[in-house]
Amino acid sequence: MDAGMRIEQTLNRAVMRGETSGCPPRLAAAIRHAVFPGGARIRPRLCLAVAAACGGDAPEVTDAAAAAIELLHCASLVHDDLPCFDNADTRRGRATVHRAFGEPLAVLAGDALIVMAFQTLALEAASMPLRLPGLMLSVARAVGVPTGIVAGQAWECETSINLELYHREKTGALFTAATVAGAASAGADPDPWRALGDYLGEAYQVADDIRDLVADAAEIGKPVGRDASLGRPNAALAQGLDGALDRLDELLAGAAASIPDCIGADTLDALIQSEKVRLVPKGVARRAA
Amino acid sequence: MDAGMRIEQTLNRAVMRGETSGCPPRLAAAIRHAVFPGGARIRPRLCLAVAAACGGDAPEVTDAAAAAIELLHCASLVHDDLPCFDNADTRRGRATVHRAFGEPLAVLAGDALIVMAFQTLALEAASMPLRLPGLMLSVARAVGVPTGIVAGQAWECETSINLELYHREKTGALFTAATVAGAASAGADPDPWRALGDYLGEAYQVADDIRDLVADAAEIGKPVGRDASLGRPNAALAQGLDGALDRLDELLAGAAASIPDCIGADTLDALIQSEKVRLVPKGVARRAA
Repeated sequence: MDAGMRIEQTLNRAVMRGETSGCPPRLAAAIRHAVFPGGARIRPRLCLAVAAACGGDAPEVTDAAAAAIELLHCASLVHDDLPCFDNADTRRGRATVHRAFGEPLAVLAGDALIVMAFQTLALEAASMPLRLPGLMLSVARAVGVPTGIVAGQAWECETSINLELYHREKTGALFTAATVAGAASAGADPDPWRALGDYLGEAYQVADDIRDLVADAAEIGKPVGRDASLGRPNAALAQGLDGALDRLDELLAGAAASIPDCIGADTLDALIQSEKVRLVPKGVARRAA
Repeated sequence: MDAGMRIEQTLNRAVMRGETSGCPPRLAAAIRHAVFPGGARIRPRLCLAVAAACGGDAPEVTDAAAAAIELLHCASLVHDDLPCFDNADTRRGRATVHRAFGEPLAVLAGDALIVMAFQTLALEAASMPLRLPGLMLSVARAVGVPTGIVAGQAWECETSINLELYHREKTGALFTAATVAGAASAGADPDPWRALGDYLGEAYQVADDIRDLVADAAEIGKPVGRDASLGRPNAALAQGLDGALDRLDELLAGAAASIPDCIGADTLDALIQSEKVRLVPKGVARRAA
């Protein structure tokens, strides 16, 4: 089965577990809306690719880690889109959860997705219980306090923002979790894989800043120019478009060079190259060429 | 060490782990505000009492389960108090988190507390990794979908409400998790302990309805009469005060009778009797006597 199908199937199993008669139907619908259809699923793909590069001896444990990371990513999108944060109307080309289901169900759907992530880990990784504590901790670390995505988002509520921490926590942390948990799910030492996640997380953030500045809303499925209008830090605004494109190249090269010696280095390298094409809007790539 | 001190220390260790320089200071403060000073800590006390009744062979695992349940309870209070739900100004006699820190940090503090609950389980229960999957699943089941507190709260967003599920999920689920996880943390079969949690959860809900109807806001530290003003179901409104007091007696008697044969039955029975005194507002107890 290919990576995309494994990811969708594990996510679907997790979401379906909540869709029984005991669950309020609108909450169940809001959760499904938040998870399907998905975006590029880049974090779980990265998790699977790293696990495969490490020999991948327990695909069900890897699938659980990948799905947990994607569910947490979806939860953060639902909460970040809320009126008290970005107040976004669209996401992935259609209504955000709070626009489609109201604010209370958006708060609750996000909460339920966080719980579902850890539940999925506990259920699907049951065949390797001794790997569970380490996996839970790498995933939790990427989401909670002091240095997960929740902490990253909360820097927007401080009078003085730590920009480096802001980006590393808000975007980088979940990429690092993807590489670290990918290795750990396969029983490998996760530490050598941390740098790859760090590089890719920062690359993704720079690419997102570029797209926010110059892309077409229709092309990326969400509003553009929001960083400037919300006064949020943006690398492409700060360094200019050329500077940001150079930085993106540098980070992707760093990512490729950081891959530890392993059987699946080629596949990982190909994944990084395809991300480069995907992440930069077509118009910008043409202009930069 | 007495139960209260064990609970506060484990909670404090969990909260302190987030209070490092990487964490936005206002988020860290909002999380501490949500957890300390606590309420009666009835759920973690129940968890400890059941574990002791089962022989309590792994106090650090029991403490982790108890703290996880209390952190999830605190998270649910922070989110339930939000403007889009109860819009409550006070809780435990002082400002709610969103009144003290703003709505964005209240959303994020609740999210961080959910993650912290599972992180605490993984960290503190590391000495007994084989008990971790079962503990995680009993706790997750009480919080997420289809039948945890998040689902219970979401019934308020449906056009047609299932009252029995609403109460069982919104309040009962976390009591049941307390007894089930208490037994599981001590390596005992959790199933015989489910009924005790179910009875106490329903008793607590009825007592809460009575207090909402007749108590003094100063005595219970939060606004009263909110069920009527928010149009929420309330047993004391529906059955009258005498009917609700009878039902409470019945449920507490059921709870006491459900206690399985064990070494700590007397302590548990005493806990139930002291809860009865605590749960009914003084004025009502006098009127009912």
